[in-house]
Amino acid sequence: MLSTMQDVPLTVTRILDHGTTVHGDSQVVTWTGDGAPQRRTFRDVGARTARLAHALRDDLGVQEDERVATFMWNNAEHVEAYFAVPCMGAVLHTLNLRLPADQLTWIVGHAADRVIIINGSLLGLIAPLLDRMPTVEHLVVSGPGDRSLLDGARVRVHDYEELIAGKPTAYDWPELDERRAAAMCYTSGTTGDPKGVVYSHRSIYLHSMQVNMSQSMGLTDADLTLVVVPQFHVNAWGLPHATFMTGVSMLMPDRFLQPAPLAEMIESERPTHAAAVPTIWQGLLAELTAKPRDVSCLTQVTIGGAACPPSLMEAFDRLGVRVCHAWGMTETSPLGTVSRPPAHAIGTDAEFAYRLTQGRFPAGVEGRLVGPDGTRLPWDGESAGELEVRGPWIAGSYYGGAGGESLRPEDKFSSDGWLKTGDVGVISADGFLTLTDRAKDVIKSGGEWISSVDLENALMSHPDVAEAAVVAVPDTKWGERPLATVVLKEDATADYAALRDFLATRVAKWQLPERWAIVPAVPKTSVGKFDKKVLRRQYAAGELDVTQL
Amino acid sequence: MLSTMQDVPLTVTRILDHGTTVHGDSQVVTWTGDGAPQRRTFRDVGARTARLAHALRDDLGVQEDERVATFMWNNAEHVEAYFAVPCMGAVLHTLNLRLPADQLTWIVGHAADRVIIINGSLLGLIAPLLDRMPTVEHLVVSGPGDRSLLDGARVRVHDYEELIAGKPTAYDWPELDERRAAAMCYTSGTTGDPKGVVYSHRSIYLHSMQVNMSQSMGLTDADLTLVVVPQFHVNAWGLPHATFMTGVSMLMPDRFLQPAPLAEMIESERPTHAAAVPTIWQGLLAELTAKPRDVSCLTQVTIGGAACPPSLMEAFDRLGVRVCHAWGMTETSPLGTVSRPPAHAIGTDAEFAYRLTQGRFPAGVEGRLVGPDGTRLPWDGESAGELEVRGPWIAGSYYGGAGGESLRPEDKFSSDGWLKTGDVGVISADGFLTLTDRAKDVIKSGGEWISSVDLENALMSHPDVAEAAVVAVPDTKWGERPLATVVLKEDATADYAALRDFLATRVAKWQLPERWAIVPAVPKTSVGKFDKKVLRRQYAAGELDVTQL
Repeated sequence: MLSTMQDVPLTVTRILDHGTTVHGDSQVVTWTGDGAPQRRTFRDVGARTARLAHALRDDLGVQEDERVATFMWNNAEHVEAYFAVPCMGAVLHTLNLRLPADQLTWIVGHAADRVIIINGSLLGLIAPLLDRMPTVEHLVVSGPGDRSLLDGARVRVHDYEELIAGKPTAYDWPELDERRAAAMCYTSGTTGDPKGVVYSHRSIYLHSMQVNMSQSMGLTDADLTLVVVPQFHVNAWGLPHATFMTGVSMLMPDRFLQPAPLAEMIESERPTHAAAVPTIWQGLLAELTAKPRDVSCLTQVTIGGAACPPSLMEAFDRLGVRVCHAWGMTETSPLGTVSRPPAHAIGTDAEFAYRLTQGRFPAGVEGRLVGPDGTRLPWDGESAGELEVRGPWIAGSYYGGAGGESLRPEDKFSSDGWLKTGDVGVISADGFLTLTDRAKDVIKSGGEWISSVDLENALMSHPDVAEAAVVAVPDTKWGERPLATVVLKEDATADYAALRDFLATRVAKWQLPERWAIVPAVPKTSVGKFDKKVLRRQYAAGELDVTQL
Repeated sequence: MLSTMQDVPLTVTRILDHGTTVHGDSQVVTWTGDGAPQRRTFRDVGARTARLAHALRDDLGVQEDERVATFMWNNAEHVEAYFAVPCMGAVLHTLNLRLPADQLTWIVGHAADRVIIINGSLLGLIAPLLDRMPTVEHLVVSGPGDRSLLDGARVRVHDYEELIAGKPTAYDWPELDERRAAAMCYTSGTTGDPKGVVYSHRSIYLHSMQVNMSQSMGLTDADLTLVVVPQFHVNAWGLPHATFMTGVSMLMPDRFLQPAPLAEMIESERPTHAAAVPTIWQGLLAELTAKPRDVSCLTQVTIGGAACPPSLMEAFDRLGVRVCHAWGMTETSPLGTVSRPPAHAIGTDAEFAYRLTQGRFPAGVEGRLVGPDGTRLPWDGESAGELEVRGPWIAGSYYGGAGGESLRPEDKFSSDGWLKTGDVGVISADGFLTLTDRAKDVIKSGGEWISSVDLENALMSHPDVAEAAVVAVPDTKWGERPLATVVLKEDATADYAALRDFLATRVAKWQLPERWAIVPAVPKTSVGKFDKKVLRRQYAAGELDVTQL
């Protein structure tokens, strides 16, 4: 039996229409670095969005379903592209500014991008690569930058403002199927080729509602949100769409992401909320220590992209800023969990521990833990398994089956369609997720999983230990066992036995490593994380001086 | 181009599953009148929901798509029916306890209800009608009441607790299409037969998300909501579903809807939020004046179902309780608008006026005003038209094309599928809706609309006027013109000319009535509203002593 409800699709167009009418006075404020930020109402952004869509269709010949790329900072023009491209029926493809040249050119070719909208300040990154991007025909350049970098380029170059000038300020947006592609984003996986995640109008709409729910970010039109998380990174955590749904004004930092200008824009524009990864906040807090500013406007920050260190949460607590910790990934749009402590814990000693977890699933996300042998594990706060998730804004495949030879679908998706996150953790009886490890780093010992991160944290709490990295190594009896590599501080007196005895007071006996190596330094990746691949290779090659205890 | 997102349906089952796991400790508290409320966790409600579904399927033979009726107060068992029936693939049909017998029997027959779940305290209303309800085969009786009223009834009678006892506490819920019917509710229209509105899993899911958005009710699991608005009335404004999405605990008054027990349950259970129509609140506030209680727990009340009188909002302001004013109807699930003042008005003189409007549309509801000649009117705060709405939780038709001979679809739905609400009002440039009239009461004068309510309010502000009702009467030149009927206070000295001059200072000249009648009383409906049908009939029959000015 069918309902008598109207069959109205959930589209980005509906979000645009709502934001530009009901919340037409809300603003997108873009920092310019010269003391005079650019201010544009949602109504103005809507008119310019229509102009951009006319230009893309009429002047550049953009077709339905065609990918249109952006290579931009967070700013009003990027918001205009966020709406114009999906609403006209094309697919917004946000390119990650931080990618190595090889990955960038591969991604542009894989998506068959013909048009790139680019900030002038970023031309230096793209100009040298254009010859390796044969699909690209048009560059639309917005904002300041040295256009001469494109002299002699084989592509057609357009100025954004000139291109949209004089175009109609309304557009007869097509009525789109909600399951149609609206935007895409490639994951920069550490193994294999990048994988394209394609968001639908439906997934963006539902994710936006979720962002606005009271137990998520829960912003209102009384808020101004500082969107530090890049628009090229998973739709800036959904904020450009979510804000148009509720009239939350946005403060966009453009290219001014250094601690000093961030502090300056907070002091002068007075955002009530901000969203960024931990490293941004650590830089900002250091800046504020060096040169205090009035950041009392901030009442809440959302932190994701990496686990929030306790010290960072404490520092914000001292400033009177509430930290909302969230977890997600490109494949989850990204909101997968949000850590709001349960009512009974607020004001108690338990509150802080709850806030440090990755949090609870919203109603739109189902989560389950799958153990080493493929069985589903209980939510008991102890059983560790790989997190699998399901929901209308969770990826179920990759674009063009991408990932190259290296990706087998069964590595990323379960047979019943759930996403394998590659994250290992536990879930408490009241639904709070704590992630402990990447699945590739966990030690699979005799049908049980040992968290490398737990062992490392326990070791690093020893006063003589500067750093500790634990990796899985092959073991004939148990399959895998942990190898502990330790960097000692100067003047350290602890030996292997002392370290092992120390660890024995903190973890279960069967988790204790038998293999130990004191090393001068732990190998690191380009972004400063432990490079466990290298450690495993060094062990396999016999390059480590390993002691058996 | 399709997205790579998972295709996960939006179902009530998903809400149930989420509420009973992630928010399993939240509670449904049902008032019992004996000082010991019944307390049930969402987890327990979930287990009993599964038991009920087993009983309905296995013992009562309920099939997919079959309507299962409830005739119940707000209580935990009604919540269990709210989930069991839709999740098993059947359709929850909430029967309105307040309907006259003729309408009730018509509705039960039209929906072909075979099973009614009923509170024992309501048996006296149904028992005498069973012979006129030939489709009904089973009554499932829950809670206290005189079962002997059913002695000799031709239906099979079951005790709710006995029926579900011993059944499995889990149910293998079917994966349902989100567009499938989940629940239905008949409107008790003043003209024609009742009309059935059928909600889908999708519409309930989306509406629940909307209820939880920060600019709507925006509750969290720190809240306890007192659900006074009946579960038989448009899904209790969506609260039973919305609370399971976010872990908000519910306080259910059962049959104790009188001011004294409501005050008592607020004082003892300390809800933070409550939802009810204005008359309930007026009764409660009178009770609190007569016998003060500690209601400081309440921080917010949601008022809808009828316009919130300014005096009521002021009374709540004095108590420190925030009033959130909302508008909707059975056909809109019901959330159509919510009045949260815009950020710039908060703390200013304009705030109160904003709060008294019906509010703004959420992103899921599109609204437009259509004028007397069918043209779309601007949002300028002045152009009055009939409100039409569109959205995924708005009705686009009625069940079985119901409404009988009296309903032509074009009276209720526009040619492009929007719902004609029958409400007339204006929308401000910043999107705030103010309803002024029912379309059937508005005066259509020469292509312009005159609000009967505006004229009445202006007249009633005259010190000599006790009551005033204005209705449209035929006019050869203008089509319709207003007739003002006035009840004077004792010792009043004003005559027609004085009243007309008084009105002339308050409304536009072309709106001034030419026809006047001083009457001893305005005819009223059974619920105390002006009965304008009767006035129009009296005028047509020449029964009023009309003076032309």
